[in-house]
Amino acid sequence: MDYKELAREVKSASIMLGSAPEKLRNEALEAIAAALEEKKEAIFAENKKDLEAGSNLAKPILGRLKFDEHKLEDVTAGIRGLMELEDPSGKVLMERDLDEGLHLVRVTCPIGVIGVIFESRPDALVQISSLCIKSGNGAILKGGSEAKHTNKILFDTIYEAAVKAGLPEHFAALIEDRTAIDELITCTESIDLLIPRGSNAFVQHIMNNSDIPVMGHADGICHIYVDKEADLNKAIKLIVDSKTQYVAACNTAETLLLHKEIAKEVMERLPGAGEIEVEYIPAQSEADYREYLDYKMTVKVVEDEMEAIRHINRYGSHHTDAIITENQQAADLFQNLVDSAGVYHNASTRFADGFRYGFGAEVGISTGKMPPRGPVGLDGLVTYKYKLKGNGHIVADYASGKKSFHFKDK
Amino acid sequence: MDYKELAREVKSASIMLGSAPEKLRNEALEAIAAALEEKKEAIFAENKKDLEAGSNLAKPILGRLKFDEHKLEDVTAGIRGLMELEDPSGKVLMERDLDEGLHLVRVTCPIGVIGVIFESRPDALVQISSLCIKSGNGAILKGGSEAKHTNKILFDTIYEAAVKAGLPEHFAALIEDRTAIDELITCTESIDLLIPRGSNAFVQHIMNNSDIPVMGHADGICHIYVDKEADLNKAIKLIVDSKTQYVAACNTAETLLLHKEIAKEVMERLPGAGEIEVEYIPAQSEADYREYLDYKMTVKVVEDEMEAIRHINRYGSHHTDAIITENQQAADLFQNLVDSAGVYHNASTRFADGFRYGFGAEVGISTGKMPPRGPVGLDGLVTYKYKLKGNGHIVADYASGKKSFHFKDK
Repeated sequence: MDYKELAREVKSASIMLGSAPEKLRNEALEAIAAALEEKKEAIFAENKKDLEAGSNLAKPILGRLKFDEHKLEDVTAGIRGLMELEDPSGKVLMERDLDEGLHLVRVTCPIGVIGVIFESRPDALVQISSLCIKSGNGAILKGGSEAKHTNKILFDTIYEAAVKAGLPEHFAALIEDRTAIDELITCTESIDLLIPRGSNAFVQHIMNNSDIPVMGHADGICHIYVDKEADLNKAIKLIVDSKTQYVAACNTAETLLLHKEIAKEVMERLPGAGEIEVEYIPAQSEADYREYLDYKMTVKVVEDEMEAIRHINRYGSHHTDAIITENQQAADLFQNLVDSAGVYHNASTRFADGFRYGFGAEVGISTGKMPPRGPVGLDGLVTYKYKLKGNGHIVADYASGKKSFHFKDK
Repeated sequence: MDYKELAREVKSASIMLGSAPEKLRNEALEAIAAALEEKKEAIFAENKKDLEAGSNLAKPILGRLKFDEHKLEDVTAGIRGLMELEDPSGKVLMERDLDEGLHLVRVTCPIGVIGVIFESRPDALVQISSLCIKSGNGAILKGGSEAKHTNKILFDTIYEAAVKAGLPEHFAALIEDRTAIDELITCTESIDLLIPRGSNAFVQHIMNNSDIPVMGHADGICHIYVDKEADLNKAIKLIVDSKTQYVAACNTAETLLLHKEIAKEVMERLPGAGEIEVEYIPAQSEADYREYLDYKMTVKVVEDEMEAIRHINRYGSHHTDAIITENQQAADLFQNLVDSAGVYHNASTRFADGFRYGFGAEVGISTGKMPPRGPVGLDGLVTYKYKLKGNGHIVADYASGKKSFHFKDK
């Protein structure tokens, strides 16, 4: 298969999709939800093939691979929820007369084509396709091979329903061959944004090997710093929640920084504070400042708040970090100087999530410095363009002084 | 010199600079303007050395290299104008209660460290340093070697005045060794954004060889499409302005697309229409769809508007493209389907410029798809972070259903 040509087809279709009216995109989403419900028995049957082929996979992986009545309800509810969300495209961000009859608007528009590479979770395929349709972006999807039968029938169902509802052909494509990834990440002309999901090493590989902008995160090394003026009851509760509420998430805290004045008391009170025992490991070397994704946490005692801030900026992954303190000035300093997408005061790092931020849908979490940063909602799938309308206006008139700009914002 | 270490020093200082109050940053700017005025004779003397060493350079290059009383007035006026502009940092973009006592804000903040590689124009060094100070970003500057004496004294003057005014040491650094560029573009930990200026080939080289986000543009292949329903008087005027008003700019039109019904008349009326004769070259092959930066323009006759749109999306550089028509529907179609940072209706492509858009200062023009896109003002030098303030809020309470989110925007 010629993946460059395929990417060009999706690119070409994305231009039409991007200018499709909101009503049509929402109708396509409803058609997709209905088609998934209608074909559910065939989908479950295909999923059974994947589950059988993967019967010796680890239990959590099998759990994600499974696509049953419950998952179907989740994804169709998700699609219908998405229909209710405001169209992220076509929003006027700025409107300005540059001069009499010369009118400038900055308006949001779809990014173009999004390449999404995701793990063996068939529900992710449905979510991602719906997000792309809602935001008017073409999509090239590469799912985990363990889910290949389920992915195929889900994609075919979605594609057929959407094209029948009026979306342009080739508005999305499913890639089944893993070796295609290396070719896709070179399609700088046709793919505008990559969203890799999966292992840190994989995400890092994509980030290092593609000139296409990448939205995502590799490591999630989040910190909790307990200040000398912390309320230690809150501190214990927040450490336990940030570490144990869901241990495999990227917003789980991995390193605990304790001010020397309260370190001893915190370490005495932590054992047994949560439902599950956590192993608190005193930092010995830089190698301990790592992501465990397990019931383990590195502990470092610091002289003062500035040492904590410097540690986080140096060893963190700019994801989400929290200070526990009752001193507002200490909190302000921390929230200003810590260079992360999320800087929290007396709250669990686990709140770093698009749904918990009230975005309605989550595209992913980005630890890059340029926007969109942190949890990304639907508005992370649009960019903007400038539309200028004149009546034969030329720059020579302004350069010569015959005319001058009269900026007037609307 | 260890450039990685230097980049780390600037990174570290940038954290303090980024949280310096607006007043301090503005005071530093005033101190810089005053210091440049005070040391002007020494600066002109250093500039003379560069001009003598470069005496056999082409005249336009020497013009850019020259730093005289007039240029000094320009840059100090530029600095004082910048002081008047609103602080791009610290703006609240979103403010939301997630629940009782759990308060989220999305607030703009400096990006961190900007690496700027610029041509042999000493005034650019002053402009870029001032923009970085105003926006709270650390700066690593590499100027053209032809301006080395001027760059050195300008940088030293700026640095000393700013540190004396209270900015942190190492808030900026000047790189004089060209071979350092290849090392700098690998400093992904310390440099957050690269802004390369100069030749297309050079910008493309940086874009292809760095994992650091790059803001800028290589080619500027802008189009004018004259629709069958164009007012041909406007069309002629706009073609002439877009092509000849300043022929070396990236927003100069390079390809003229003519609807077949008006092509003959336009081609008859164009010769002699402007002050300078332009060579209109009929398109023979794809190689003609290029950037001339000269009084030359490729002409292609198209069957209809859709062919023009497809041509622009395929061969353009997503910079700025214009349609000339009196038909509003044709204009809307063009402005929706052309995938460029600027899509114009009856206006010259030469308007694509931060000052003409009323931004007060221009950082550059970006042809990337992700924001910031098009002409970038001071607000392109900031990103944002999320600050969450709670009172011991944990996610477990929401996961268990004990509490629920009550989103309330401010």
